[in-house]
Amino acid sequence: MNNKQIILKNRPKGFPDENTWQLEENKVPELEEGEILIQHHYISLDPAMRGWMNDTKSYIPPVALDHVMRAGAIGKVIKNNNNPNFDIGDCVTSWGGVQQYSVSNGDGWFKVDEKLATMPMYLGTLGMPGMTAYFGILEVGKIKKGDIVLVSGAAGAVGSIVGQIAKIKGCTVIGIAGGQEKCHYIKNELGFDEAIDYKSENIYSALKKKCPQGIDVYFDNVGGVILDAALSKLRMHAKVVICGAISQYNNKHKINGPSNYLSLLVTRSTMQGMVVMDYSKDFGKAAKEMNTWLQAGTLKSREDIYEGIENFRETYNRLFTGEKNGKLVLKVIE
Amino acid sequence: MNNKQIILKNRPKGFPDENTWQLEENKVPELEEGEILIQHHYISLDPAMRGWMNDTKSYIPPVALDHVMRAGAIGKVIKNNNNPNFDIGDCVTSWGGVQQYSVSNGDGWFKVDEKLATMPMYLGTLGMPGMTAYFGILEVGKIKKGDIVLVSGAAGAVGSIVGQIAKIKGCTVIGIAGGQEKCHYIKNELGFDEAIDYKSENIYSALKKKCPQGIDVYFDNVGGVILDAALSKLRMHAKVVICGAISQYNNKHKINGPSNYLSLLVTRSTMQGMVVMDYSKDFGKAAKEMNTWLQAGTLKSREDIYEGIENFRETYNRLFTGEKNGKLVLKVIE
Repeated sequence: MNNKQIILKNRPKGFPDENTWQLEENKVPELEEGEILIQHHYISLDPAMRGWMNDTKSYIPPVALDHVMRAGAIGKVIKNNNNPNFDIGDCVTSWGGVQQYSVSNGDGWFKVDEKLATMPMYLGTLGMPGMTAYFGILEVGKIKKGDIVLVSGAAGAVGSIVGQIAKIKGCTVIGIAGGQEKCHYIKNELGFDEAIDYKSENIYSALKKKCPQGIDVYFDNVGGVILDAALSKLRMHAKVVICGAISQYNNKHKINGPSNYLSLLVTRSTMQGMVVMDYSKDFGKAAKEMNTWLQAGTLKSREDIYEGIENFRETYNRLFTGEKNGKLVLKVIE
Repeated sequence: MNNKQIILKNRPKGFPDENTWQLEENKVPELEEGEILIQHHYISLDPAMRGWMNDTKSYIPPVALDHVMRAGAIGKVIKNNNNPNFDIGDCVTSWGGVQQYSVSNGDGWFKVDEKLATMPMYLGTLGMPGMTAYFGILEVGKIKKGDIVLVSGAAGAVGSIVGQIAKIKGCTVIGIAGGQEKCHYIKNELGFDEAIDYKSENIYSALKKKCPQGIDVYFDNVGGVILDAALSKLRMHAKVVICGAISQYNNKHKINGPSNYLSLLVTRSTMQGMVVMDYSKDFGKAAKEMNTWLQAGTLKSREDIYEGIENFRETYNRLFTGEKNGKLVLKVIE
C-alpha cells in the first residue's frame, strides 16, 4: 500500500513556492506490535503552518527538512496490531501531517464521535481553531456581557467562532473581513452586529463609524495595519488578544510592529499572547459546550473543502489570499 | 511681586526649539478669599512633559497654547487669605507648572514633611517618578522573589527605583543605561546584578550574556530597539510593563512599534500599560514604605539639580540627551 506524502524540502522566504514542498509516494511500513494504521480522510490547513516552516525559536520546533509537513489530520483506524485502545473503524484525529496514512502506537490520537459532528468540523469548530477561539476569547479576552468586541479574520476558522461566542455571551461584536461576501456572511448569517470590509473600507474611518464608543476586547488574527487601527480605538482597561498575525507571516524582512502600542499606556490596556495547546486539558469540556451551541443552532460552523493531496500548495495559498469560505480543509482520501 | 513663567507658545515637531516656550514675567494676582500663594522652590522635569505638548488624545489633556507649561512643583505657602487647611510656611507640592508662584484655593496641593526628606526628593523618589516605579513594578509587573527583572532607563528617576525595589523583593536585576558612569552607578552604588551600556554594547549580545536565562519582567521606559531586544528574551508567561518610550517621543513621524511583539504569543506573555495617577489613593501608603527603605539605606535617591527658570529649556533637553544623573530638578526660587 502506498502513502502519498507532502515533504518539506526547502524553507520558504516569503510565500512558499514550487521548491518548498515535494509530493512523494512511499510504501506504508508494516505495523509493529501495538501499532495502528490510520487512513487520513481530511487534512487541516491553518495559518500557523507558515510559522512552523521557519527555523526560529517558537512555541513548537520547526518542521524538519525532508520530513512530512506538519498538519492536523482526521481519519479512520484501518489496521490494528494488538493495540487495546483502538478498534478498526474508530474515527481519530491528531497531528497526522500532510499525508494519506499514519502509523502510530496511538499516542496523541483522540477518538471522536462521528454521530455528533462531521470529520471536517472536528478539524475546525471542534478542533484547534475552535479551541483557540474558545479559550482565547473566554480565558484571555475574559469577555463580559456588554463588552464591545472587535475581531479580525472574522469570517475565518478562528474569528468566526470568536465572534459567535462573544454574541452568545452578550457582547456587541464587530468583525473585520475581506470582501463583501464574507462581511455579508458574518453579519447576516452569524449575527455579528457590524462588519468592516478591510478591502474596500478605510479601516480607521470604518472603526470610527462602526464602533464609535471604542473597543473593550480586540481579538487579533492579522497584525499589521489592522492591529494598529484597533489599538487606536481601545477603551480604558481594554484587552488585546494576540492569536496570530497572518498579514505578516510571509514578510521577507522583519515584521511590522504595532506603532500605536503606546495606546496600551494611555488606556491602561493589556496585550497578551496565547497558544491553544496550553488549554489542552480542558479541550473536552470546551468541545462539549461548543457542541451544545452547535446543536442549538446558536453556533454555526462552515468548512471549505478541497480535494486531492496533489492540490495541497494551491489550497494552502488560499489561507493567505483569503480565497476561501470558512475553515479550510483538504480531502486526501482517494 | 512678579512671577516668571514658562509659557507654551508653539507645539514642537520633534525636539522643542527656541519657539516652543517663552519666558514671561507677570504680576502675581491678589488673593481672593480662601486662596493661598505658593512660592515654588523646585520644578520637576519629566519625559512625560514631551507628550503633554502634543495635541493628541492621551491620559490627560495637552497643555493649552499660551498657558504655563505643566510640571510638578514644590514650594512653600507664603500668603494665606483665610484658607483653614494651610499655614504660612507649609511645604506643599502639586502640578504647579513651570513658574515661580502659584495662586490656588488649595485643591490638589499636598503638604509634605521636610524633616523626612528634601524638597527635590519629594519630586523624585517620593513623588511621581517614585510612585510610578513602586506601582509599576509591584502592581503591574507583579514581581516575585527570584524573578529576573530587566529595566531600561535604569539610572533615571523611575528606572533606578524600579531596580532597587526589585532587589529589595529578592529579584535578580539587570539595568540598561547610557554610558559607563551610569552603569557603574547602578551596579556598584545601587546594587543591580548587571548593567548594560546601550551606548557602547550591542544590546542583543549583551542581553544574551547578562541574562542568559531570559527575563520574567521587563519594565520599559524607552521603547524602540531596546524594547524589541527585550521582547526577544522573554521567558514563558513574562510581563512587560509599558511605562514610557523616551526614545520615541521626539519622532517627527510615527513611532516605531515593537516588531518582536509576536514573542508575546510564543511565550504567552503580557504587555501592559500604566499611568501612575490610577494609584493615587495609595500614594501615601507607598511613600511611607519607600521612606522606610530610604531611612534603612536599602533605597537610594539621587537628584540632579539645576538652577534658574531661564535655563528651563536647556535643562529639559537633558532628559533626552541623557546628560543628567538621577532625578532632574530645576530650582526656580531666586
